[in-house]
Amino acid sequence: MEQAPIRVAVLGSTGSIGRQALDVISQLPGRFQVVALAAGRNTAELARQVAAFKPAYAWADAPRDSALDSALEAAGARWLDMDAIAVAADVDILLVGTAGAAGLTPTLAALNAGRPVAIANKEVLVMAGHLVRRAMLSGGGSLRPVDSEHSAIWQCLWGEEDHEIRRILLTASGGAFRDFDQRALDAVTPAQALDHPTWKMGAKITVDSASLMNKGMETIEAMWLFGVPMEKVEVVLHRESIVHSLVEFSDGSVKAQLGVPDMRLPIQCALAYPERMPVPPAPPLDLATVGALHFGAPDLSRFPCLALAMEAGRRGGTYPAAMAAADEVAVARFLAGEVRFTDIPRIIESAMERHTSTAEPDLETVLAADASAREAAATVSVRVPA
Amino acid sequence: MEQAPIRVAVLGSTGSIGRQALDVISQLPGRFQVVALAAGRNTAELARQVAAFKPAYAWADAPRDSALDSALEAAGARWLDMDAIAVAADVDILLVGTAGAAGLTPTLAALNAGRPVAIANKEVLVMAGHLVRRAMLSGGGSLRPVDSEHSAIWQCLWGEEDHEIRRILLTASGGAFRDFDQRALDAVTPAQALDHPTWKMGAKITVDSASLMNKGMETIEAMWLFGVPMEKVEVVLHRESIVHSLVEFSDGSVKAQLGVPDMRLPIQCALAYPERMPVPPAPPLDLATVGALHFGAPDLSRFPCLALAMEAGRRGGTYPAAMAAADEVAVARFLAGEVRFTDIPRIIESAMERHTSTAEPDLETVLAADASAREAAATVSVRVPA
Repeated sequence: MEQAPIRVAVLGSTGSIGRQALDVISQLPGRFQVVALAAGRNTAELARQVAAFKPAYAWADAPRDSALDSALEAAGARWLDMDAIAVAADVDILLVGTAGAAGLTPTLAALNAGRPVAIANKEVLVMAGHLVRRAMLSGGGSLRPVDSEHSAIWQCLWGEEDHEIRRILLTASGGAFRDFDQRALDAVTPAQALDHPTWKMGAKITVDSASLMNKGMETIEAMWLFGVPMEKVEVVLHRESIVHSLVEFSDGSVKAQLGVPDMRLPIQCALAYPERMPVPPAPPLDLATVGALHFGAPDLSRFPCLALAMEAGRRGGTYPAAMAAADEVAVARFLAGEVRFTDIPRIIESAMERHTSTAEPDLETVLAADASAREAAATVSVRVPA
Repeated sequence: MEQAPIRVAVLGSTGSIGRQALDVISQLPGRFQVVALAAGRNTAELARQVAAFKPAYAWADAPRDSALDSALEAAGARWLDMDAIAVAADVDILLVGTAGAAGLTPTLAALNAGRPVAIANKEVLVMAGHLVRRAMLSGGGSLRPVDSEHSAIWQCLWGEEDHEIRRILLTASGGAFRDFDQRALDAVTPAQALDHPTWKMGAKITVDSASLMNKGMETIEAMWLFGVPMEKVEVVLHRESIVHSLVEFSDGSVKAQLGVPDMRLPIQCALAYPERMPVPPAPPLDLATVGALHFGAPDLSRFPCLALAMEAGRRGGTYPAAMAAADEVAVARFLAGEVRFTDIPRIIESAMERHTSTAEPDLETVLAADASAREAAATVSVRVPA
């Protein structure tokens, strides 16, 4: 039986997630079809992608140059913005691989239209998870996580009931500095922080990985993706990054999803669901060769960003948005050499203390919280590094 | 909403699985109800169980004494044999916790009647797995494994498609002698073999655990429980017995089920399916405290029973029945001090070599293969231990 290919719209197609998604799609040409490509400012790469995948729609957050115009014309692709792509009739699934707030309105639009959304965008869920979840429940859409940890949890929940979740156990590699003492952490340089042991990522997320803020944000994402309170979310250190996360159920049974660290598997899972494609997009896991998997409890005194993020998730309202905004500013200040690595949580904590939260905020209120927390974080004074 | 309790018939109620099942059921009195208890020869224990659980039906493979008669009368329980219990109208699920061939006909009867069967009986699946599977498919019944490894695989398959299984990874603790060299294995005594590190079991299965024959039989059971050829079944050493088994899917994603080693969890899972009960029957898993999980490849040269069993499963026909029968005799000869521990696989191999297999055997043919392999195994001459 010949199956119709799954028609995928890729938002953020020139970013890391987008490029890996196109790699996955290229491996299974009969099963997937690219119907839309939307990029940020990299129009040269977008032009190449349009030429290769011939989508029906394309868009960039930048002026079109002649190369892109030629590619669009040759492919017969229509220029369509991300909100419109999200609800276009010939899109089966929307992959949101954009970074930052740009992914929010297309995500909401697709969910409101009853569409499945493969979501790789952290900010959307951290800042406005309650709005995303509300759109999903009212519009009949669905969220398929792309992040390896959340994909693991999601896969563990197939065939299970969300109300039978006792605990979500998010695994954390522990970051580049998991074995550093407090003194060594104080002395961390931006160059050190940007050298992540397992994944290749952008500067902001790499620092967030080292501070465990990234893991903290993932706990908030887990709340909204799986409809659980923060009390049911725990973080467990696991340096090998083989067990991508675990779920403990009401009867005490624990399920885990494992694999070599490679984003292409969770991307493919999200695009192919409810099927599993017959081709592994990543190298197979050989447990006997891996030999040992280690687990431990995170040290919140050395990595206070994790506790701050979980506290923001627990408090709710606009706290997560304020926390994420303060983190963005604090990380920028660290990368600029203005503050120490260990000042990042101090800046966030100070911004959160000064924040007045609004319950059940609308988008405007979320963005206002974001702006005021940025201002607060920018002006927090900390000791100048030696 | 008040749910009707799940009505459970427990075959082998005085054995290890049966007693643990009754423990699970006792913890959730509103959710489970014992409607039948069938035992072997331990009528004193059966009488106590009948008095405690007041089943509608009871049976023993032994004459009734006055204590049992009084208990039956007080409970208003009817004497009914296992085949009749298996199809009684007021049974929701049949738990087959009997050892040996006694569990076969009730299992087939329940499956033919479209019933779910929670199966803990190894021999039934090893000897006659093809008959069990055929009864399941034609009668519309279902099999729910109770063994911790197969329960793990089963749980990993909830919400998944059997045809998307790439590999089943059965974990093995490695047995009591996993670190013994060949010379030390030659010198193993029955007393040493009966001291299993993790699980408390009977003598035969404890020796089978030490020789990895038990794991070999589990590979055959996995074939029939999950409808996969032996080529898709692998054994991976995992000394902590925390990861109860894993499944690799067609896209390379691997799922595992974990827990502390405690049979009550898989028993409860099998009885409660498709729900998970709100009460953990076993202590919770604390991965951070466990610290490390180790994996490795089994050494087939030191543990040839594993390879022999997998080869029997690969060949099919009456080979598995002959292999299992030869093992039973070989283990008895070892426990009697007649042959060495390392003679067990030699005896099995010799019996298998002399065996002429029949494809798609009926029950009579299986039992004939069993009898002739027993005879062969009893007469294999091996060097007398020093």
